[in-house]
Amino acid sequence: MALIVQKFGGTSVGSIERIEAVADLVVKTKQQGHQVVVVLSAMSGETNRLINLAKQIDTRPSSRELDVLISTGEQVSVALLAMAIIKRGHSAVSLLADQVNILTDNMFGKARITDVAATRLKHELEHNRIAIIAGFQGRDIEGNVTTLGRGGTDTSAVEIAGAIKADECQIYTDVNGVYTTDPRVEPNARRMSQVTFAEMLELASLGAKVLHIRSVEAAGKHNVPLRVLSSFYPDAGTLISFEESDMPGNVVSGIAFNRDECLINVEGVLSGTQYLAKILKLFADNGIEIDMINQVNHNVDKVDYAFTVHTNDYLHALDVLTEQQAQLTAQNIFGLTTVAKVSAVGMGMKSHSGVASLFFDALAAENINVILVSTSEIKISVLIDEKYLELAVRALHKIFLTENE
Amino acid sequence: MALIVQKFGGTSVGSIERIEAVADLVVKTKQQGHQVVVVLSAMSGETNRLINLAKQIDTRPSSRELDVLISTGEQVSVALLAMAIIKRGHSAVSLLADQVNILTDNMFGKARITDVAATRLKHELEHNRIAIIAGFQGRDIEGNVTTLGRGGTDTSAVEIAGAIKADECQIYTDVNGVYTTDPRVEPNARRMSQVTFAEMLELASLGAKVLHIRSVEAAGKHNVPLRVLSSFYPDAGTLISFEESDMPGNVVSGIAFNRDECLINVEGVLSGTQYLAKILKLFADNGIEIDMINQVNHNVDKVDYAFTVHTNDYLHALDVLTEQQAQLTAQNIFGLTTVAKVSAVGMGMKSHSGVASLFFDALAAENINVILVSTSEIKISVLIDEKYLELAVRALHKIFLTENE
Repeated sequence: MALIVQKFGGTSVGSIERIEAVADLVVKTKQQGHQVVVVLSAMSGETNRLINLAKQIDTRPSSRELDVLISTGEQVSVALLAMAIIKRGHSAVSLLADQVNILTDNMFGKARITDVAATRLKHELEHNRIAIIAGFQGRDIEGNVTTLGRGGTDTSAVEIAGAIKADECQIYTDVNGVYTTDPRVEPNARRMSQVTFAEMLELASLGAKVLHIRSVEAAGKHNVPLRVLSSFYPDAGTLISFEESDMPGNVVSGIAFNRDECLINVEGVLSGTQYLAKILKLFADNGIEIDMINQVNHNVDKVDYAFTVHTNDYLHALDVLTEQQAQLTAQNIFGLTTVAKVSAVGMGMKSHSGVASLFFDALAAENINVILVSTSEIKISVLIDEKYLELAVRALHKIFLTENE
Repeated sequence: MALIVQKFGGTSVGSIERIEAVADLVVKTKQQGHQVVVVLSAMSGETNRLINLAKQIDTRPSSRELDVLISTGEQVSVALLAMAIIKRGHSAVSLLADQVNILTDNMFGKARITDVAATRLKHELEHNRIAIIAGFQGRDIEGNVTTLGRGGTDTSAVEIAGAIKADECQIYTDVNGVYTTDPRVEPNARRMSQVTFAEMLELASLGAKVLHIRSVEAAGKHNVPLRVLSSFYPDAGTLISFEESDMPGNVVSGIAFNRDECLINVEGVLSGTQYLAKILKLFADNGIEIDMINQVNHNVDKVDYAFTVHTNDYLHALDVLTEQQAQLTAQNIFGLTTVAKVSAVGMGMKSHSGVASLFFDALAAENINVILVSTSEIKISVLIDEKYLELAVRALHKIFLTENE
């Protein structure tokens, strides 16, 4: 008997029929002798419907009240699933954030979970009930409703799994696992049966949409094995664990990409770390996260910097820099939106040299220019012209991930 | 400066436009120098939409989970109204049942409020904020979500008004006051400027839809003056107080009616109070409230009983009785749904004889048969065939409430 947390996303509970199917799946797990805790998102479309109501009142509605509003979406889906499980003759109980004591900070709309007491949850499990918990929501120390931001239900599931020391946290979604790259771009993409947390963190942060990065971080922190699987066609899916991949043949585990980054160039800045520090402080003060950084020294006096930021922050970042152009001693500030990032990720890169060489050879063979490069122990990322993105993904997948024939 | 509780029902917040109008009305009261607490229902149609979702899963869904589900309706409306007031430059905060500590028993779907601590509410008022509270909902001692049943938002408003010792509790609705009967049935119905709690209690319990009976009881208990008025065309409305009506000319104040009752017959029961006691205990144990009771002794051995119950409890009540038919010694158990109750209510009936005679004469003149009768000091109620309901209301209104010409 294991203690299993099962998380279902919006499309998995997107209709009454889907909720009935999830109820079957949960009951099946229970009948296998496991203790089951379910964490749910709102029915797909519901959160957007609620946000649209708010926008009709105020284009920038109170963030506290927006959280009160949109947290109702999960409350609806947990009640409906509990009813469906009870109809099947099993004991079930829906629980809201305050009932599970999911404590967060008070950053409405993007709160972070600080503690999960789970006293009542443990009590319900002791009484052999299936607990159905509203994901995505929390309460701050004053009892105000908070939400964790899009993708937050994954984080809820993992934090709850950590609090009750679950044996596995299963993330049911509309895809059946983590792929070597996006199958819409590369039809030969293969599903991985296993991937490490380190790899998954890189894949998630690099734009693989399957798992929210915070949930992967949290799973790593709590040492909870994660499994990604399809609620439509459930099978073994992809296991994310601390163990090395079971595909030792591949140095690279996956090719990730991201269209949501823009390039910002700050050219002709006086040499000296203090100017780079000023730029970075400007970004930090304005809540702008930067991803890639590059520095080119033309001569002893002048330096060119290049950064990538999220598309949503692009205009803001340009404004902020341009306002301070004189203080930054920059001769020229300009950006480029038609860029994309492609990355190869793999634990095997730690011990295999020559990966970078293969990587750049593959791009060169397709005449793809590289604008920026960034590397870590287990990944290589490049920024390229957006129009070559699919070509680059396919070329890299072919070199690193095509099965031996 | 007064402390005013304003309650708005479903149609008053039935659309974004209506919520904006309510925001204007609340802000106007605040600008007059009053402290304002607002209590809201769900947007009209929302509760039914949610119940319909539940019924798609289970025709008799778990009552605990149904409460979790439908309580989201009020959460949505309080968040939206708070946004609308904040947009107008006033400080506002939405509060849910657990944040106001609205404690109830655990009779899901028809819970009763046992305590309102209102600690945080008082704190928000001290900080000059407009508090927008989700009506209709509460929490039991274990923290489970409960709802008070249809019309429960009135009760929430009154209980909250009592807890904070409000000067007046204003019930804004889609009618502009309490009428001598439903104007849709009798176009000559007149609005009362004032009515006593005793009369209102009878009118509410007999089916006048303006105010929920529990809210009138609670207002009487807490000594909170109630005012019923229109959120569409606000004026003085109808004041409900401890003082006698200002219409002394009428022995009868109003004609109430109720289509939501069904008849249940339990026939051929052995004589002896113990069997009636058993039947009543069955109803009580199953949370079924009965309204009218009638007993007919055919001979020394056998008794027929007739009861009326709410339409929602009808099938449940029949099931419960039929299961125990042998123990109850009943020869025959059957029901009838095509019935309705009509009542005449008035403080003047205490001191005027001959009212009952006029009442039955009026029905007899229209050939309306009476199935059951029930009376109190200030009312006469009869159960009749549903198809004669409108005719009966008009006949009684004409005799007792037509203005002298």
